[in-house]
Amino acid sequence: MALVVKKFGGTSVGSIDRIKKVADHAARARAGGSDLVIVVSAMAGETNRLFALASELSEAPDVRENDALVATGEQVSAALLAIRLNAIGYPAISFLAHQMPVQTDANHGRARIKSIGCDRVRAALGAGRIVVIAGYQGLDEHGDITTLGRGASDLTAVAMAAALKASACEIFTDVDGVYTADPNICPKARKLKRISYDEMLEMAGLGAKVLQLRSVELARRFNVPLVVRSSFNEEIEGTWVGHEDQSMEDVLVSGVALDQNQSKITLTGVEDVPGLAARIFGPIAGAGIVVDMIIQNASADGRTDLTFTVARGDLRAALDLVKTMANEIRARGVRHEEQVAKVSVVGIGMRSHAGVAAKMFQVLANERINIEMIATSEIKVSVVVNSKYGELAMRALHDALVDDKPEAGGAQTF
Amino acid sequence: MALVVKKFGGTSVGSIDRIKKVADHAARARAGGSDLVIVVSAMAGETNRLFALASELSEAPDVRENDALVATGEQVSAALLAIRLNAIGYPAISFLAHQMPVQTDANHGRARIKSIGCDRVRAALGAGRIVVIAGYQGLDEHGDITTLGRGASDLTAVAMAAALKASACEIFTDVDGVYTADPNICPKARKLKRISYDEMLEMAGLGAKVLQLRSVELARRFNVPLVVRSSFNEEIEGTWVGHEDQSMEDVLVSGVALDQNQSKITLTGVEDVPGLAARIFGPIAGAGIVVDMIIQNASADGRTDLTFTVARGDLRAALDLVKTMANEIRARGVRHEEQVAKVSVVGIGMRSHAGVAAKMFQVLANERINIEMIATSEIKVSVVVNSKYGELAMRALHDALVDDKPEAGGAQTF
Repeated sequence: MALVVKKFGGTSVGSIDRIKKVADHAARARAGGSDLVIVVSAMAGETNRLFALASELSEAPDVRENDALVATGEQVSAALLAIRLNAIGYPAISFLAHQMPVQTDANHGRARIKSIGCDRVRAALGAGRIVVIAGYQGLDEHGDITTLGRGASDLTAVAMAAALKASACEIFTDVDGVYTADPNICPKARKLKRISYDEMLEMAGLGAKVLQLRSVELARRFNVPLVVRSSFNEEIEGTWVGHEDQSMEDVLVSGVALDQNQSKITLTGVEDVPGLAARIFGPIAGAGIVVDMIIQNASADGRTDLTFTVARGDLRAALDLVKTMANEIRARGVRHEEQVAKVSVVGIGMRSHAGVAAKMFQVLANERINIEMIATSEIKVSVVVNSKYGELAMRALHDALVDDKPEAGGAQTF
Repeated sequence: MALVVKKFGGTSVGSIDRIKKVADHAARARAGGSDLVIVVSAMAGETNRLFALASELSEAPDVRENDALVATGEQVSAALLAIRLNAIGYPAISFLAHQMPVQTDANHGRARIKSIGCDRVRAALGAGRIVVIAGYQGLDEHGDITTLGRGASDLTAVAMAAALKASACEIFTDVDGVYTADPNICPKARKLKRISYDEMLEMAGLGAKVLQLRSVELARRFNVPLVVRSSFNEEIEGTWVGHEDQSMEDVLVSGVALDQNQSKITLTGVEDVPGLAARIFGPIAGAGIVVDMIIQNASADGRTDLTFTVARGDLRAALDLVKTMANEIRARGVRHEEQVAKVSVVGIGMRSHAGVAAKMFQVLANERINIEMIATSEIKVSVVVNSKYGELAMRALHDALVDDKPEAGGAQTF
């Protein structure tokens, strides 16, 4: 019998009414013959409510206690869904992290899963029950509750699917799949039938918030076929995420992503000597600041300009560090731009097709948009542009580079 | 170093502000040199909110899932209090039932504690931490969450005090101690400095809602000195509950209790043969209905009237059973009174002093209150009267029988 893991996010279980709908959906799937494991997030708003309570009691809440606090959100939704399933005649049982257990390291707030015990889950499935699992939570070696990071119920679902060798992991969310671009910005954006893990990783890392990054990595590592689909309309097929296949490579660009949450810092007139980058970026990394793009131009007079981007929330802290360093390394100056836009095109077709970057630059030139930074990877080209041109750049690139014909449907090859 | 267990109920941790006050109280006690274990209930209203969510999803929520659901209330308050204590510089750690563990049987909703593991608690105390424990919850042999019954955070506190051999278990509540009667009804009611376990058990069983019945039983069994005191004013000393001593016996009556939540059923003209009571009360007990007082008058003609009381909520179910039986046992009829008042005087002094019951009847006669039923135990006399005279009876008995001079203070002998 096919085993499917289904994950429902906060909006999908956000009210008594929504929980009833999830139960009805699960009941239909179960009646259709599937063994079911359902992973739930906290009811929408609940995790924020709990974080807010803690912050009223402490500026920096103890991380162990904070995890015990916020983990209750998923415990509540799991119990409520199991109560509903039992009430409509579908035997169900909920499990918390400590009952399986979901073993993690002790990094509270962003723990990593080390192993998952599946004996009780398998026994319950064998007895014909629907298993409901509280997402987002784990247990460290001392038996303390940990959490896996915001949005990490996806991760719980993928890890369960991997551990149980499920035939698929369906992520139900408030969008109906993965789009070639944000439809709110690109009217011509269309839903993808399929996308590769690698592309999805680039998209997830680029600010497309459909799937949590770590859950895609885990799915790729353990060959878990993912489906992103709407929790509001189960007629709609959604997007499959899996290993790439021949037909995928025919598609040049799978998507265009926009990240408006970036800031740019430039150190000018830096002496171009070995070890410079390490000297600058060591302390920044040490402060927990993630640097995204880095550009260094070699120069004629032995001096160079060094530009990099950070998330906007890290700008102040990064600037403080860089200004201190600027004196030490005798740079001429420090400049910054608080909001810049990063626009990226992603597609595994780029591996075999030359010229995507060139075409991209031409499209932006046609729109008279100046490119401030460029970074490329095997399946991605990113440019930084003035923030006010971000959406225009995204639309122009999407319409020029993304095929407006949907991919062929047919049998799923994952 | 003295170890004290302190329990704070729902009102005491009912808001962020109240939690801060509890933390401040604990900090002072800790600074004063005590080792502290603090047991908390769910924030006021939270348990009811969770029960209500479940009842929107099912008429009869699955008991296992319901326990997992409502146990989150105490998990939240325990984590919040520990967060606050850490924030104000007092290292604290919270423990849930599965982290100690508090082992119980599998009777969801009313589980009984079988054992408590104290290793982690002792280690944390040894490391100078304040230990915060989520009350009301346990773990059965499968690792499933159980709850101990409404009001059972008291039970958790007493069990912890017994397991850790604490010097006292302080129950902080919204009243400042145990009174000789309900002060809302008897203006002359005064707070008791001390009361024996036996008296407290009679008072708790009679509807004085200060302490949960099972927690008093457990305290008596394990010699845990209990203190009931106000969480709003820690200057006030509260009431000690412990084993009786010489001075206690000098007090004739410790308190008067009123229970307006009783109904009375009378079977008239029943044939007075052996086995009659079993035949009547077997099915009633089988339906889970607790019968309180039973009166049977022997009669001359071989027939008798049999009267008993039940909680008002059980009246309909009890009447249905009794009416069916009335035919079978050929009783002449069934009468009932939906609301009657039970007034009881309690005092261990009654063991050695005769005449309390007689004095009681005289007081009621003076007030022209008719006595409908009488029941006595070693340290208690209860009468059932017409509901409308309940409060008058309570006031009259209190003012006539309870000494209006407070007991001598002085050293606590427990």
